[in-house]
This record gives sequence, C-alpha cells and structure tokens, in this order.
Amino acid sequence: MNFHLVSIFPHFFESPLGSGLMSKAVDTGLVGLDFVDVRQFAGGVYKSVDDRPFGGGPGMLLKLDPMVKALDSIPSRGRILMLSPRGKPFTQAQARELALEDDVTLICGRYEGIDERLLDLYPVELVSVGDFVLNGGEAAAVCLVEAVARLLPGFMGHEESGDEESFSAGLLEYPHYTRPEEFDGLTVPEVLRSGDHGRITAWRREQSLTATLRDRPDVLPTARLTVEDIDFLRRLPRTRLGRNLYIALCHYPVTNKFGEKVAVSVTNLDLHDMARVARSYGLGGFYATTPIEDQKALAERLLGHWREGAGAQANPDRAEAFAKVKVFDDIEGAVLDIEAQTGQRPRFAATSARLDRRKQAQPALTFGDVRSWLANSPVLLIFGTGHGLAEEVLSKTDGIVRPLRYLDDYNHLSVRSAVAIIVDRLVADEY
Amino acid sequence: MNFHLVSIFPHFFESPLGSGLMSKAVDTGLVGLDFVDVRQFAGGVYKSVDDRPFGGGPGMLLKLDPMVKALDSIPSRGRILMLSPRGKPFTQAQARELALEDDVTLICGRYEGIDERLLDLYPVELVSVGDFVLNGGEAAAVCLVEAVARLLPGFMGHEESGDEESFSAGLLEYPHYTRPEEFDGLTVPEVLRSGDHGRITAWRREQSLTATLRDRPDVLPTARLTVEDIDFLRRLPRTRLGRNLYIALCHYPVTNKFGEKVAVSVTNLDLHDMARVARSYGLGGFYATTPIEDQKALAERLLGHWREGAGAQANPDRAEAFAKVKVFDDIEGAVLDIEAQTGQRPRFAATSARLDRRKQAQPALTFGDVRSWLANSPVLLIFGTGHGLAEEVLSKTDGIVRPLRYLDDYNHLSVRSAVAIIVDRLVADEY
Repeated sequence: MNFHLVSIFPHFFESPLGSGLMSKAVDTGLVGLDFVDVRQFAGGVYKSVDDRPFGGGPGMLLKLDPMVKALDSIPSRGRILMLSPRGKPFTQAQARELALEDDVTLICGRYEGIDERLLDLYPVELVSVGDFVLNGGEAAAVCLVEAVARLLPGFMGHEESGDEESFSAGLLEYPHYTRPEEFDGLTVPEVLRSGDHGRITAWRREQSLTATLRDRPDVLPTARLTVEDIDFLRRLPRTRLGRNLYIALCHYPVTNKFGEKVAVSVTNLDLHDMARVARSYGLGGFYATTPIEDQKALAERLLGHWREGAGAQANPDRAEAFAKVKVFDDIEGAVLDIEAQTGQRPRFAATSARLDRRKQAQPALTFGDVRSWLANSPVLLIFGTGHGLAEEVLSKTDGIVRPLRYLDDYNHLSVRSAVAIIVDRLVADEY
Repeated sequence: MNFHLVSIFPHFFESPLGSGLMSKAVDTGLVGLDFVDVRQFAGGVYKSVDDRPFGGGPGMLLKLDPMVKALDSIPSRGRILMLSPRGKPFTQAQARELALEDDVTLICGRYEGIDERLLDLYPVELVSVGDFVLNGGEAAAVCLVEAVARLLPGFMGHEESGDEESFSAGLLEYPHYTRPEEFDGLTVPEVLRSGDHGRITAWRREQSLTATLRDRPDVLPTARLTVEDIDFLRRLPRTRLGRNLYIALCHYPVTNKFGEKVAVSVTNLDLHDMARVARSYGLGGFYATTPIEDQKALAERLLGHWREGAGAQANPDRAEAFAKVKVFDDIEGAVLDIEAQTGQRPRFAATSARLDRRKQAQPALTFGDVRSWLANSPVLLIFGTGHGLAEEVLSKTDGIVRPLRYLDDYNHLSVRSAVAIIVDRLVADEY
C-alpha cells in the first residue's frame, strides 16, 4: 500500500516514518512512502508556496498552483485526504477502510488554511484527528499513516493482530500487568495469575466496563452491552449529576396564546409525567408552583392520593415518584427550599419553545452550559405551562436554554415531552 | 516550557520536533525538549524493556522498573500525561490549560499496554488524541506538543495568535482564498475582494455555520449560536433522518402488571403528545393500533375533533400535528401502509423499559444501530401501552432498543415521556 504525502515539510516525516516497524514494512515492500515536496513545484525566484488570504485575517495560505502541480505529479493518487480540523473525525473504522486501498494521498495543509478551490479541483476528503489545532497536517498525517499501516496483514508480525478486539467493542481497554508479581508492595491481581481463562476473560470485561463508565461514559450509548454487562455496570459507583438538577412547573405567571399574562390549572397528568421523569432520572426535586389557593389544594389532594391513598396501594412505583414533588406559591419558594436542602443558592435556567428575540438578548444557553453548572451547584430549570413563561420570570433567570427543534418552524411539543427530552439531554443514562 | 518525553523510541521525535517553528522555539529557549530514553534505564544484558502480560493475550508490555527509573530521573516532572486510547479526549481547551504549565511529562506507552501499577505509583493522567489505535504514544505526543507549544506567546511570531477565534466558538473554520483571483475558471468569492469588513465577517460566519451543519452537526449543540446564526441555519438544506422514522403505539396485545395479555384503552393524551412529537421531529408517520372496534371509533372521533372540528379551529397547530396519525388494527396494518408509501418494507425495533432477560436474547439495539438503519430504510419503532409489549410482538421485531435508564433500578417513565426521549435521541435537532 502506497502513501503519497504532500507537504511543504517532507523532512518532518523522516524519523517517525523511518524507524521501528514502519521502516521494516517499507523494507519488505508492504508499505510504500512517497514524499511529494510542494516547494519543488513553486515558481518564481523565491519558490514561494504561500500568500495572504483575501478578505484579511491572520496567517498565510498555501497557494493553488504549486499544490495542483504537486498533486498532478502523482501517477496513482487513489483516495485523496486532507488533514484538517474542519474534517470529519478520523476513527478506527476509517483506518480499517483505508487499509483496503492500494494508494492513499494525504495533503498536509498548513492549518491557517489552504486555498479552498483545491476542493473544487480534486475529490478531497477532509479528516480531523481531533478537536485541537496544529501548525500543519504533518503530525496528524503521521498518526493516520501509522493507524492504517499497522492494520495491513504482516505489519505487526504473524502472531499479532493490529485490531484489538477490546477497542472494536466500543469499550476502553482493560489494564495489563507484567512481571514482577510484586513491585514496591503492589501486586498483580490474583485472577491474572490463576490460569483460569474464563475468570480472566470476565475480569477483563469488567475492568473495561469500569474504565469506560469512569472515563468515557460518552461511548457507552453505542457500545454493544449484554445483560451481564449492564448488571455489572449497575453495581458501580458513578457520577449522579441529576441530584443537582431541580425542575419547576410554573402555572403562574405564564402567557396565553395572545401573549397575555394568565394562570393555568394544575393537571394530574403534568404532575404525573414530570414526577416520573424526576424519579427515574434521580433529580433533586420537582416543584409545582401556583399562588391560587384552591389549585394548591387540588395539587395536594392529587399528591395525597398517589402518595398515601388508593393510588399508592395500587401502584407503589407512583408513590415513590410523587415523594419528591412539592407545591409552592412561586419560584422563590422553590429556591428557598433548595437553599435549605443544599446550603447553596441554585442557578436558574428558563426553557422556552421560542427563540429569544428581545433586543440585547444573550445567545441561548446550551445543554453543555447547564451541564457544567450542574457539576458545581444546584440548578433550577423552569418550565412554563400555557404558552410559556411570562417575561417577569424569564428576566430573573441566568439564561434561557436553546429551544428544542430550533432549526424547525414547527415546534409544538407538550410541556411533558419537553421536560422529558431536556432532562434526558442534561443527565442521560450514564450521568 | 519544558516537555519531558519518556519513550523507548526517542529517535522518533528528531525530525518532527527538530524543524520549522518548533526548532526556532527551542533555539530561543521558549520550549525545552528533554528526551528520556527508557531503554537506558533497563537492566540485564539485553536491556529488555518489555515482557509478556499476565493472563495471556497478544503483544508485549512495558515493564515497570525501567519506566519508574526513567520518571525518577526527571528533576521537575510537572503534570504527567500518558498518551493512550483509554484516555480522555485531548481538546483545544486542554491544550490551553497545559500551555500555562512550566513542565509537562509525556509518557509514550506502547499501545499494547503498560504495566497498570505505574498509575498507582505516579499521578498519571491518560489522554487520547482520537478513537484510533497507534503502535505507540509517540505520534500522539507530537500532536500534543505541537498543539500546546503553538499557544505559547511568541511561538507563532508577534503578528499571529495560535488560538483561532473560529475554532474557539465551536464551529468549523470558514474557507480561505488567496491569489490568483482566477484559477482554472474558478474565482475567489466577490465578497472577499470587496473590502467591506462587515460583509466579510458575516459571510465567513455563514460559511462556518454551513460547513458545521454539513460535516459536524454533532458540535452544534454546544456551539454558541445567536438568533441570527439560527435563522441562517434554518434556511440551509439538511439531512432529515426523521422522515424515515415511523412510530406506533400498540394498545393490543400488551401486558398488565401481572404479565397477562390485555388490551388497553386509547387515550386522548397519548395520541396528542405523540402526534406533537411526530410533527415536531418531522417523522414519517404515527400509528395507533387497536383491533377493538369501539376503540377505533373513539380514536377516529378524537382525530376528527382536532383535525376538522372545534379543536382544529381553536388550535391549528394541533390540526397539523394530527394530520399524520393513522389508526390500524395491528402492526401489520402499519407496515403495509409504510410499504405503500415508501415502496420499502420497514425494519422493526421494539422498545421496552426492561432488559430482555430471555434465554438467547440478543444484546439490545443501541440508538446508533437504529440511526444507521434510518439512513437506508424506513424504521418502525413500536411502543407498548400498559406494562409493555406482549411477547408475540417482541418476537417479530428485528431487535429491542436498550431501555432508557438502563443503569438504574427505577425506570417508570410514562410512554409519552419515553417516546419523546427516544425520538429525540434518534433524530435530535440537527438531523
């Protein structure tokens, strides 16, 4: 397999691609490395390859002409990839795919940029090795060449495969130990010295699950998990971000469809669905707020039915869900209750189905923003009944969360659906 | 700032860290590079640094003793990082943080592994440059050193900053152009030659938004977006995975809490909430299934009220939501309807609040699995009322989606909440 490396710094690759297993693979003909020096194709006295961008801005760009000549000099280019932070993330799956090719051309841009028209002239795929910025594509290209080449049959020697099963399953790898059995008082886990392959396999799987839940919970949703895996994961300690999240359903002051300030009735089903979300996601609490006395009485009667009355006997799960529901006159009552419980004043985020188009409105809060708050303090997330929270509530919050379905014109979810989705986005299964 | 690079292949770094801006930074004293050759600390005749893992498996591990001696030889280690696919993802934010340090020690493991006890002996942070596998940490270390060093004041020269604003905002960078104005019939966009900085800034922002929606929609949820950004994004074409997704609410055969097969009544609110989810997420359709004639009549009466009756006049949004709801006897009726509309037989996924503990049960489907189906064919996602779908429905599907809250014992969401969350996970805002 041939890699054609197009760069203004071909010298960069000398030592990383000229040593170890890579140099053996080149010697045996398994890998061909073809360094294409863009500067050799530059014209003029100074052999200049870069120029300033149109429209201003820092940095220099690689000019088209030498790049085009460099690419045209390659007889068999195969797939053309350019390393760029604008690219799609490079993954092990893509490494496997590329390992089936005969030729791959890698363009190392300078990360300040390349003249965009190159992408009109050639079928260039942009790939990124990560969400960080380098001086040029060369260091990323070394990673890509190494990740692909090691998957070629024969690269690693006959005993070993380059594609570890543990990585393929979407979990982090389990820990390894080698001799001596004891070092500085630290011993190798007994199971690994037992010779019992069933126990060793099970232990390694559990270690992978433990490491993944601790360090990369973000990959669990796509990992292939058996029932045994899940039963094991359930027994592990984990972050419970949800404990810092409190939700409030505000029945007054909210707006009606004409934008007028109104009060909305408390309903059994809103309380039900939200209480079940609050309990299932392990939230700190759920508040229903209304200043109207007979509405409060209605709410308390509903809660009583499900907590201690006939509802609790028929359905003990509901009693548990309703245990954390409280009814207060207003949001301030909820705030005082959170302060009393946690010793901290919560941060407030409002929710809305509409973009905030008021003058001087701040950009909407992202779920990432609210999640970072949750790591440090209680957060009260306020939902409105009717047609949404009144201005006087919105203006007291630390921000408004970006609406769900913000790219669509039609966004008419029930408050029950919106609560479920927003809570899930903030403190999904693994958090 | 000093980088201490601990490796068994220090020669690897020679050319990448010995050329260009990096070599200038070393010459001026801005960056200090300290190569620590682990092999020099190995004992025995063969200076061996590796050994086989306890418990079996492919590959060799780095032994503890030379690694410990190598680390102890560094007078001022600062933070110790090890490059590993088991690590947390390395990001630009972490690069900024590391650029404030005086000393950073980077351990380049061989990726087959390192003796885990090293992590007990030193406060080692594991970092990963991406979800791919390398032969060793060296190529990743080059990326990390370059990403950090270029943020040091003075590294890039006085004119430029290493930290592009466009990347910090969480969007992909806009395209760049340089001279000539015309190349092979391709011209530089007029706006960039206009000298109008307001227009140039707006154009670049729009180009960043366009590229991000097309290639990295996954970063939009955490990007800081203004109302103007969102209005622009709304006008762009995008993938509509939701069109291939159909949901069905099954009222028979389902189970009651004793596991018996029963029929459950159609309710106004289930239809309401699910119709609004289906319309808001642009789904292909929503089916309610019941074989009971008076239940079908009830459902049709409800639909009529909201589609054409008093409900439609009071609330036209609801009429739109209910437009795609259909009532059929059973799931097979829904399937035939989807086939008639799309010419393709849908794939089926069932949902359940419980883990599938039947013998020979397959691992649960992940949301990634179902999303990959959606790219190629219609998918019918089946929800049960009561205590969940009966066995005879489950056994006909292509799989059961992993339960929401699978790590918790308490998982009693309403079907309305579960539908909202599952649809959101499959075809969230940007898809």
